[in-house]
Amino acid sequence: MTDPGLPGRLRAAVGEAGLVTDPARMGGYLSDWRNAYSGTAAAVVRPVSTDEVAAIVRACRKEGVAVVPQGGNTGLCGGAVPDTSGRQVVLSLDRMRRLRAVDPVNQTITVEAGVVLQAVQEAAAAEGCLFPLSLGSEGSCTIGGNLSTNAGGTGVLRYGTMRDLTLGLEVVLPDGRIWNGLRGLRKDNTGYDLKHLFIGAEGTLGLVTAAVLKLFPAVRSRATAWVAVGSAQAAVDLFGIVRALCGDRLTAFEIMSRQSVDFVLRHGTGARDLFGSVHFWYVLVELSDTLPDARLDGLLEAALAEAFDRDVAGDAVVASGSAQVAALWALREGISEAQNFEGPSLKHDVTVPISSIPAFVERTDKALRAALPGIRIVTYGHIGDGNLHYNLSKPVDSDDDTFRNLAEELARMVYDATSSFGGSISAEHGLGQSKRDVIADYKDGLELELMRSLKHLLDPRGLMNPGKVLPAW
Amino acid sequence: MTDPGLPGRLRAAVGEAGLVTDPARMGGYLSDWRNAYSGTAAAVVRPVSTDEVAAIVRACRKEGVAVVPQGGNTGLCGGAVPDTSGRQVVLSLDRMRRLRAVDPVNQTITVEAGVVLQAVQEAAAAEGCLFPLSLGSEGSCTIGGNLSTNAGGTGVLRYGTMRDLTLGLEVVLPDGRIWNGLRGLRKDNTGYDLKHLFIGAEGTLGLVTAAVLKLFPAVRSRATAWVAVGSAQAAVDLFGIVRALCGDRLTAFEIMSRQSVDFVLRHGTGARDLFGSVHFWYVLVELSDTLPDARLDGLLEAALAEAFDRDVAGDAVVASGSAQVAALWALREGISEAQNFEGPSLKHDVTVPISSIPAFVERTDKALRAALPGIRIVTYGHIGDGNLHYNLSKPVDSDDDTFRNLAEELARMVYDATSSFGGSISAEHGLGQSKRDVIADYKDGLELELMRSLKHLLDPRGLMNPGKVLPAW
Repeated sequence: MTDPGLPGRLRAAVGEAGLVTDPARMGGYLSDWRNAYSGTAAAVVRPVSTDEVAAIVRACRKEGVAVVPQGGNTGLCGGAVPDTSGRQVVLSLDRMRRLRAVDPVNQTITVEAGVVLQAVQEAAAAEGCLFPLSLGSEGSCTIGGNLSTNAGGTGVLRYGTMRDLTLGLEVVLPDGRIWNGLRGLRKDNTGYDLKHLFIGAEGTLGLVTAAVLKLFPAVRSRATAWVAVGSAQAAVDLFGIVRALCGDRLTAFEIMSRQSVDFVLRHGTGARDLFGSVHFWYVLVELSDTLPDARLDGLLEAALAEAFDRDVAGDAVVASGSAQVAALWALREGISEAQNFEGPSLKHDVTVPISSIPAFVERTDKALRAALPGIRIVTYGHIGDGNLHYNLSKPVDSDDDTFRNLAEELARMVYDATSSFGGSISAEHGLGQSKRDVIADYKDGLELELMRSLKHLLDPRGLMNPGKVLPAW
Repeated sequence: MTDPGLPGRLRAAVGEAGLVTDPARMGGYLSDWRNAYSGTAAAVVRPVSTDEVAAIVRACRKEGVAVVPQGGNTGLCGGAVPDTSGRQVVLSLDRMRRLRAVDPVNQTITVEAGVVLQAVQEAAAAEGCLFPLSLGSEGSCTIGGNLSTNAGGTGVLRYGTMRDLTLGLEVVLPDGRIWNGLRGLRKDNTGYDLKHLFIGAEGTLGLVTAAVLKLFPAVRSRATAWVAVGSAQAAVDLFGIVRALCGDRLTAFEIMSRQSVDFVLRHGTGARDLFGSVHFWYVLVELSDTLPDARLDGLLEAALAEAFDRDVAGDAVVASGSAQVAALWALREGISEAQNFEGPSLKHDVTVPISSIPAFVERTDKALRAALPGIRIVTYGHIGDGNLHYNLSKPVDSDDDTFRNLAEELARMVYDATSSFGGSISAEHGLGQSKRDVIADYKDGLELELMRSLKHLLDPRGLMNPGKVLPAW
């Protein structure tokens, strides 16, 4: 089946320890963590160095075999899963876990692609610094995956996405050459900034092997509040009030619909409602500061007082103690899992301008409810970035298949609304294979043409993660 | 001389009001503000709309004529100046000055390329917001130029460069098509992020006509200090102390050598030395905050107290009142002009990792002094970004020509040292024509090859600002 030369070439590249061809051992690399996508592969290779990565890419190129890079395999769009041909090679970065350098004075850390996000956070903390990227899968997702999907999460509001946190890259190009762009500089205007080609490209233009990332001063105080609001408009107004007053101290501003919270209250261990009455929406606000005694509780209370004065907030509590802070975050972070208990769900990850959120939510909710009465709309997300996870659960009384059959139609309604507000149908999850085709209906044709041109320029034979982001050829 | 069809085509594109062919009126567009670079042109065209820009690009393409985009013409590397062939067309964006939209809720502003930076700052302030890009020429430089050179300045430490401040772009491609990427989204992962191709490309890949820029909450308190330190190492140590304590409040951290300050004291109107004794280096520190009463003076004093405890600071004063703040900034901002009174000077704009600054300064100063005893080293810059303006003035007793003849050798010494520390030989000024050739000696060959590939992909006929960034062909 496979080219007879391939195993030999791969063995030469990574040695026996780095080559997996036993189907039982390959299993974990061939489907994503949710089992939503699965494929087969000629081999899984696990290099330990950039030179080995380059050797693998050259070997596959000689054989005309496609390479599928894989990090922590925590993606949601099938971007790291091979196709079903059995011809592709999965290149896992999971043995490239070296912290190459930490420079607390320059506030940079240089890490290999297979380093787990949490390990970077911990290495930064050990130097009295902060690496601010934070997302649900931080215990298993890797820096290479974070870079390739331009990961977001809860810290984007203050610190930006992975792209914003990156100063330099090392990349193995589709032709097997190594580009060393590992510069730790905050200003460098000596030509085109090549690193941005590879960040967010999901391994289709080259394979990221290492990066220089920005560090920030460690946070020494924090305050957290849970606020009930009556509408998405009130949530946006609250955001404006808190941001104008607190500025950069505002490091998280998360919104949840009542439906989202209801699911967590029903299925989350120990979750409880904080207020006597039911509200339409809830917001989790977090302030943080480098000062050890920044009096953030008082500042947050001042912002909330202004919100009450302006009839923006319905109820609010500033968390006292780390247990309550953890409980509030558990309400927010438990939504995705709690939704699984309520039958099949459809998940969308969209951005619109923050100012358009109220109209977007109103229009989209209305259209969805008209299309499927009883549909449960589980809207939550990073409202400070305009980013909503607009998830849908089936009506209580409908059967699963009816709902599943409507999936495409319902997704189209969410995407059409997003698009009509100038939004993005993939805020932080990427395109992978799941949104590769639908994006063509929402993105400008000229932009798609430019994307294809770049792909053909860098990977003329289409061997780097084919069929992800753009259709294979 | 010029293709006979060109004037007619340009007239059709922009009308009589937008076409300048009278040599007297063209003058101001044909050389830079310092008169360091000058050229000639077949015409200067001044479109008022993106459609007109596209029509000009198509007209020039039909005639095989190169287009040189120009904004406020405040660049330092000749990037906006035509060559001497008389065949090129200068496309000035100076009539594209519309503020298309301000959205204080989304914290974005959409402006055309010809809008002056200061006008954007003022429009943001009118909405209670901050547009943080700030540089010496802000009263005349334009957003298009800021984007095309990825401008920096004094606010980069906290807010990033122009690239970091940009959410969306509108670009006329070299083939005359218009790419509308004017999205005001903080998260969008739907394929390759094309805007980064055009930012910092100095108009060689396409012509930026408009942009969506990020706004921030307005600053309501500020504190400024002037600190004397004994060495570059002490300045870096002071940076670490202030940044760890004050975090995001630290919005400027500027270093100046005694030589720099001496020049301002000698030539600046009303400039005076603040301390009784002479120190080797000075630092200007600025904190700012969104809170109206943020007690920043006290915080700055606490940071300075720690610096004194650790023998990092030699002397310090926290400015009281806006007049003293202005006087301190005048000391910093007067350096460039004051240096002009001291005979010919050589100006360099480099970045190294912040942690390398002390060794870089020591090594480079020593080499320069060995090469030319008596050379006056006017080092100053944005030490928080690792960015030094490493300027040189001739020895008092040497003649101008001797110094000028050494220019290339001295620049090489600065660049070689920069390169040996993993630095950049152009931090914020770009390459233009002045550093187009020398960069080939300092940049990885593979990177230069990728840059040329991108240029050929987007501009195969080489008609967009040829000879800037990369050699013309």
